[in-house]
Amino acid sequence: MSNTLTHNAYGKSNVRLTKVTRHESGRHDLLEVSVDIELQGAFEKSYTHGDNSALVATDTMKNTVYALAKQHTFNCIEHFGQLLASHFVANNKQVAQATVRLSESPFERIEVNGQSHAHSFVGGGSERRTASVVVTRDRTTISSGIDGLLILKTTASAFEKFQRDRYTTLKETRDRIFATILQMEWTYGHATACPDYNAAHAKAREASLRVFATNFSDAVQQTLYQMGDEVLKTLPEVSQVTLTMPNKHRILANLAPFDLTNDNEIFVTTDEPFGLICGTVKRGGGS
Amino acid sequence: MSNTLTHNAYGKSNVRLTKVTRHESGRHDLLEVSVDIELQGAFEKSYTHGDNSALVATDTMKNTVYALAKQHTFNCIEHFGQLLASHFVANNKQVAQATVRLSESPFERIEVNGQSHAHSFVGGGSERRTASVVVTRDRTTISSGIDGLLILKTTASAFEKFQRDRYTTLKETRDRIFATILQMEWTYGHATACPDYNAAHAKAREASLRVFATNFSDAVQQTLYQMGDEVLKTLPEVSQVTLTMPNKHRILANLAPFDLTNDNEIFVTTDEPFGLICGTVKRGGGS
Amino acid sequence: MSNTLTHNAYGKSNVRLTKVTRHESGRHDLLEVSVDIELQGAFEKSYTHGDNSALVATDTMKNTVYALAKQHTFNCIEHFGQLLASHFVANNKQVAQATVRLSESPFERIEVNGQSHAHSFVGGGSERRTASVVVTRDRTTISSGIDGLLILKTTASAFEKFQRDRYTTLKETRDRIFATILQMEWTYGHATACPDYNAAHAKAREASLRVFATNFSDAVQQTLYQMGDEVLKTLPEVSQVTLTMPNKHRILANLAPFDLTNDNEIFVTTDEPFGLICGTVKRGGGS
Amino acid sequence: MSNTLTHNAYGKSNVRLTKVTRHESGRHDLLEVSVDIELQGAFEKSYTHGDNSALVATDTMKNTVYALAKQHTFNCIEHFGQLLASHFVANNKQVAQATVRLSESPFERIEVNGQSHAHSFVGGGSERRTASVVVTRDRTTISSGIDGLLILKTTASAFEKFQRDRYTTLKETRDRIFATILQMEWTYGHATACPDYNAAHAKAREASLRVFATNFSDAVQQTLYQMGDEVLKTLPEVSQVTLTMPNKHRILANLAPFDLTNDNEIFVTTDEPFGLICGTVKRGGGS
Repeated sequence: MSNTLTHNAYGKSNVRLTKVTRHESGRHDLLEVSVDIELQGAFEKSYTHGDNSALVATDTMKNTVYALAKQHTFNCIEHFGQLLASHFVANNKQVAQATVRLSESPFERIEVNGQSHAHSFVGGGSERRTASVVVTRDRTTISSGIDGLLILKTTASAFEKFQRDRYTTLKETRDRIFATILQMEWTYGHATACPDYNAAHAKAREASLRVFATNFSDAVQQTLYQMGDEVLKTLPEVSQVTLTMPNKHRILANLAPFDLTNDNEIFVTTDEPFGLICGTVKRGGGS
Repeated sequence: MSNTLTHNAYGKSNVRLTKVTRHESGRHDLLEVSVDIELQGAFEKSYTHGDNSALVATDTMKNTVYALAKQHTFNCIEHFGQLLASHFVANNKQVAQATVRLSESPFERIEVNGQSHAHSFVGGGSERRTASVVVTRDRTTISSGIDGLLILKTTASAFEKFQRDRYTTLKETRDRIFATILQMEWTYGHATACPDYNAAHAKAREASLRVFATNFSDAVQQTLYQMGDEVLKTLPEVSQVTLTMPNKHRILANLAPFDLTNDNEIFVTTDEPFGLICGTVKRGGGS
Repeated sequence: MSNTLTHNAYGKSNVRLTKVTRHESGRHDLLEVSVDIELQGAFEKSYTHGDNSALVATDTMKNTVYALAKQHTFNCIEHFGQLLASHFVANNKQVAQATVRLSESPFERIEVNGQSHAHSFVGGGSERRTASVVVTRDRTTISSGIDGLLILKTTASAFEKFQRDRYTTLKETRDRIFATILQMEWTYGHATACPDYNAAHAKAREASLRVFATNFSDAVQQTLYQMGDEVLKTLPEVSQVTLTMPNKHRILANLAPFDLTNDNEIFVTTDEPFGLICGTVKRGGGS
Repeated sequence: MSNTLTHNAYGKSNVRLTKVTRHESGRHDLLEVSVDIELQGAFEKSYTHGDNSALVATDTMKNTVYALAKQHTFNCIEHFGQLLASHFVANNKQVAQATVRLSESPFERIEVNGQSHAHSFVGGGSERRTASVVVTRDRTTISSGIDGLLILKTTASAFEKFQRDRYTTLKETRDRIFATILQMEWTYGHATACPDYNAAHAKAREASLRVFATNFSDAVQQTLYQMGDEVLKTLPEVSQVTLTMPNKHRILANLAPFDLTNDNEIFVTTDEPFGLICGTVKRGGGS
């Protein structure tokens, strides 16, 4: 062999779990989550020599998801992710790092005659609550997030004074639709006592949506920064926030050929192409 | 030519409209809808001779969606569908029938400090509000519906005493998860005065979800029938309801190899294969 | 109960089978097919009374797919579909009609040093070979088809002399890109001796692509008709052909703002909206 | 502002181009490619102050794709990517790095009477030819790749002697189906003279498929390494290869309840969960 394996990782993806917790009152809790597990460690011989003796089978990883879900009580995916990632590091000395990514599909109880039902739910939204847990021999890093959340404001969004060159045709505007599918992930700092991840998630969601809804936007970039900044201000236990915001364009329909005006009323909804704006905001250091 | 064109139809699909209605109060209403238009009529010569003189270009259909959306005020997709379908029949004598299918993506206002925001929205659910309008020279048929609505109950669902044959391995159960993605369409009768489609939609949704949540299910088929029956009872202006309910299985995880019990707590979430149950319920005739 | 169940049907969808046939030579054949089964018959009591005694469980349908795949040798999905549909009708007197729809994902052998490999394959195309088999007490109807086949011609396509009205902006053209995703289904007549479905499929595919490639197109409608007509001319055992051809637009990019010409060189590739053209061509009757 | 923007990037994604090159012979070449552009540089003020003066509008990026496609002749996406990335760096002093990712949808000419047609094509495969070009003030890095390529071998794949723990149920096997959807990216070294990217792509594809088809697999990991190693051996101008290979399981159907044997003939095709195996192989350093 004349070439070198410089990086390797493997695992199981899209392990889908439904867990029903049955309370004595007759009320059921429902969790549906898709789990990805990835291990890094001393697995080179499987690659270079077909020697699988160090490999945890990905089928075993799948089984572990269901078995640990049964044996443990947890009230958030961050906790479940820690259980899983710690399990693989603790029980396999060849594993240097276990990463568990979780994507929860939210459900709400069906309302019947104004009361939330004990065991019947509505789901189906594109929004996901996410968590990412990385466990090594030395430390555990926990991130939480939101993915797939479509938000749209019909005004209070501008885009002006950008650079113009030979290929620029876009007009400046003080009033456009701003639609995005929010992906946001915040990472908890190490020194902090164990936070209430459910409360933190709700606060981060509320803070970012509030900024999106109420701040005037001079650019997607500006709104992205302000949303991340507000999450940091709201959650002292968070050290940084990364946001990805596609600009899902609604294009003003050209009604001039029909002698009709269009004062930002009628738009063509598009999926592609889309702008894609990214940024990471870290606590402190600003002025 | 030795063979005969026995059926033809053509149109434009996935015309996506965003309409913003700006009220004097500063409050905006938002509609996002995807529109499919299909015409039937005397178009044979385009097929058999490449003579396009009778064809309304599908590009014109697209333009018409945006132009009529601008020129008309409407508060539901059923009304907008009627405007569109009637337009094509009224203005084109070669058109025998115009079918307009609409699929609306629901949005909710973002809540900021307990108040619904004037112009900022959250969307992204898989649920769609649908409408189908068929206009001919003689009559207009209007159907409304729900599509893509994921509903799940964690108990109060059985499946017993079904037929067993050589290839049957499924165990009978009094307690299983029942998950489906509801597709339901109800058709309004002709003699009825123009209904409030928004109120009717809300009532049909509420009635079907209430039945799903609260009735014990002996079979997906039974629940389907009961949901359709309840919609007919709730909406006297509706003549029939068609429901399609995939049985999106949650399969009890086998934890026996790990010496763990599983009292309907831990399930494998699956997308396929899935059962697919259909039925149409028509007003009257029962006993 | 005051309302009537007027239609019902149920079954199992997306039963996915991989079958490997191992020849003595060491050569393997590979079939990957997704199967949908739907039964109609005397199932009303399951809907109206939760009495499941007449129901073949959809789980049993799934098992039957794998069991019959094992027990029978077949060289095409049309044959496998007949085995399945006949099984359900023959073994269940309450079943009036069984419909089996099959969608095969084509694979080709990997070429190694100019030789097709014995057991290694490349797949992944969007094209599907389809079949639909409907068995009742009285007769069997077999249709074959193609789905998901993206075909594109860069010229020899026009669209002219269509109707113009107030909302028409489309320019006439003698030279445009014509791209479609072909869906075509042909039905075999009853009196015919059992055809070679594999050869027929290859001939129908070849005939329709030949017409698409070589005939000048005055309209998508015309090309659709000519393709169906040619399939009927090529396959005497076929009684009718139904085609659905979305017009997947490639829109001439507007380069005028950059002082660049665009002689049908540079296009914007779009997925939506799209034209949707349908037609059924039946043997005989033409002049 | 008390928090710091530590990373930012933005661009335009899914800019979809169809380019037709019309040769004097009447033969047309067809390119369909989706382009993602991402810029990094001095854009902080847009994030922190809504000052957009440094921003190249993503709409301008889109226009640039179409304009440069018109003005330049190129015979591979690697070349087109260089033109685009260099354009943004050369014309915008605030841009530190431009990354262009391209994903080409392969088309083949339709065969008519044994001849490849001049302007009619079949596409639709899931395979993509990819390229990634990163241009900074100092250097240009070019990678090429394959994505979405479904390959499957029906035998000559084992998985044995892996670690077993409390949650392991997987049986060892010397004969299983090995199916994956190949994603592979190789990076060209700097000192090399400009390679023929088309020939290199064909060779990398051939080499990796040959290894997949003919080498016995003791683990997905081993096959992944051997495929990457072979690409390095085949293409001296390549410095490293990264491969991602999901293990798309075909699960042996349990036919025992039906008293049927199953000697690796009948499998359940699944999409999830799936194993996911990654590795990077770098030239040299091995023994």
